[in-house]
Amino acid sequence: MSTTTISVPSPADFHVHLRQGNLSQLVTPHVREGGFRLAYVMPNLTPPITTTDQALEYKATLERIDPETEFLMTLYLSPDLTPDEVRRAKAAGIVGVKSYPRGVTTNSDGGIESYEAYYPAFGAMQEVDMVLNLHGEVPSDASANIHVINAEPTFLPHLRKLHAHFPRLRIVLEHATTRAAVETVKSLGATVACTITAHHLALTVDDWAGQSWNYCKPIAKFPDDREALRQVIREGHPRFFLGSDSAPHPSMKKSTSSPDHGCAAGIYTSPILLPLTAHLLESFGALDKLEGFVSKNGRAFYKKEIASIDGNNIVRLRKRKAGVTGTYSLKEEEVVSFWAGKELDWEIDNQG
Amino acid sequence: MSTTTISVPSPADFHVHLRQGNLSQLVTPHVREGGFRLAYVMPNLTPPITTTDQALEYKATLERIDPETEFLMTLYLSPDLTPDEVRRAKAAGIVGVKSYPRGVTTNSDGGIESYEAYYPAFGAMQEVDMVLNLHGEVPSDASANIHVINAEPTFLPHLRKLHAHFPRLRIVLEHATTRAAVETVKSLGATVACTITAHHLALTVDDWAGQSWNYCKPIAKFPDDREALRQVIREGHPRFFLGSDSAPHPSMKKSTSSPDHGCAAGIYTSPILLPLTAHLLESFGALDKLEGFVSKNGRAFYKKEIASIDGNNIVRLRKRKAGVTGTYSLKEEEVVSFWAGKELDWEIDNQG
Repeated sequence: MSTTTISVPSPADFHVHLRQGNLSQLVTPHVREGGFRLAYVMPNLTPPITTTDQALEYKATLERIDPETEFLMTLYLSPDLTPDEVRRAKAAGIVGVKSYPRGVTTNSDGGIESYEAYYPAFGAMQEVDMVLNLHGEVPSDASANIHVINAEPTFLPHLRKLHAHFPRLRIVLEHATTRAAVETVKSLGATVACTITAHHLALTVDDWAGQSWNYCKPIAKFPDDREALRQVIREGHPRFFLGSDSAPHPSMKKSTSSPDHGCAAGIYTSPILLPLTAHLLESFGALDKLEGFVSKNGRAFYKKEIASIDGNNIVRLRKRKAGVTGTYSLKEEEVVSFWAGKELDWEIDNQG
Repeated sequence: MSTTTISVPSPADFHVHLRQGNLSQLVTPHVREGGFRLAYVMPNLTPPITTTDQALEYKATLERIDPETEFLMTLYLSPDLTPDEVRRAKAAGIVGVKSYPRGVTTNSDGGIESYEAYYPAFGAMQEVDMVLNLHGEVPSDASANIHVINAEPTFLPHLRKLHAHFPRLRIVLEHATTRAAVETVKSLGATVACTITAHHLALTVDDWAGQSWNYCKPIAKFPDDREALRQVIREGHPRFFLGSDSAPHPSMKKSTSSPDHGCAAGIYTSPILLPLTAHLLESFGALDKLEGFVSKNGRAFYKKEIASIDGNNIVRLRKRKAGVTGTYSLKEEEVVSFWAGKELDWEIDNQG
């Protein structure tokens, strides 16, 4: 391999958690530090971002923290989302609506249980061309043998049904983890896309068994599932692109459990995201697909193409081994990134 | 349900880890505190118990800690186990030989990779009527899509093959966790039995995802697998019986992980084992099978029947809700039992 630098035009992370308060102050600048110029921001705050006004206020807060990153905002799907609110959101520049099944991940207690009630909102979203972002898991139900391993495959019929009802609605199946999800998205039309995280390209179930730092939702699945994620990237499939699902939690909540509570679900990748993604893609023979995966594919689906690349938007990676320290703190907040203590083969040479 | 007391003759735990040093001092008495009179002792110490002399020394140490519990000893399957050593072990009263696949659980680095090399030892064991105890998992191998979830089903052909080669050798598949394992054992002859832990009757994969206190090897599987374990107990199948796999680890090793190491695998049930087992069996309609599951079935398979029950061997349970404190300490050692902070519906009324 003779490549020693790679230039990527304006990398975009189409799924990221930027939190609130001091934690947000700490982690929001890491989007750019990790090589990204655009953050598609998840709305699962406390309380969740369910209205246009809340989203605009959140966006203004994020822009104050980092004026140089572009923040695309989403609403948390809830009964507040009337067709009128959809049109108001669209007019205000809000890009998408995120659906969380009830109780499956961080701050999802207000999540949805069935989609029919939201068909009027989805109809309005289709009409004004907003994006529906799906956390594609059903809640566990022991009586039906539904659990964290089959929660995503069991969700896929909902995706098929939504796409059949709303064929022009742009839908993103977020953070796919299974071969079944990859195959389903491939089989659907041009309005259905899929994000893949960096960490799901690295981990399998063996990595989070007993290791809370590798625990996230959806959980990493089997080696064969990971291979399906890698393969669709190697293929350069245009409807699959990076959404990091970078999800910071205070170190204590990641490291420590007691008999009555476990650890927080989430893996934090923002500060190392572009080098990590390059490192992983190279490890499975897909480095030539990096630009498509982290920039072009997602930007095309979201209609956020870069009209004219100027020099400031190019991020250059250099091939050089660098250790990942991984600990970041601000006031009382401390977070630790994925890959802490390991080495990456690539580093950012020029922040653009 | 009008039952308010249950008497169980001489409960026997056919799979327990009693450790060494101070930890052993702390946990060994808990066998009897938890209602059991017999402990079938695992040999995965550091270094492992591979010879008759080591096993006898270990037995003497345990008997000094609790002279009132009967300890049945095992050897750790290794190249030290020649046919001569098998005969020496048998003559010394050692009951079984435990096989650990390499690297799948606590102190299994010296575990085996294939069985053919041990056929001479197995032949001698069959001849002198020693028991072979199998940790029935194969090591993970991403290239073959083998991982913690399918490690046990993937092992089952090895069990079938061993039974076919040594049809008179008594074999126990330890701590079964899957429907596939239950069905395989049922399909084999009278010389093949199976232990089931208490915690695998309670937990599924959802319970250990992000919760290290519920993390053990083999990991708890799916609700349908748990149902298969419950069902075979409800049936009162004589070749299935309790082996708690009670496995104490220092609290810190259960509660705390860092990015470069996870938590210890193991669930500690000894101090509450009989009340817990009664509680769980009652929860799925198998309380009438308690005596068979915790005493008769295992004792019959191991030929350790109680010739004449005297009053001292009867353990009586009383139906009364009692909270589980769960923390036990001695010198620097601290362990926390399963179910800490919860309530059990049964408690030991009479230690016998």
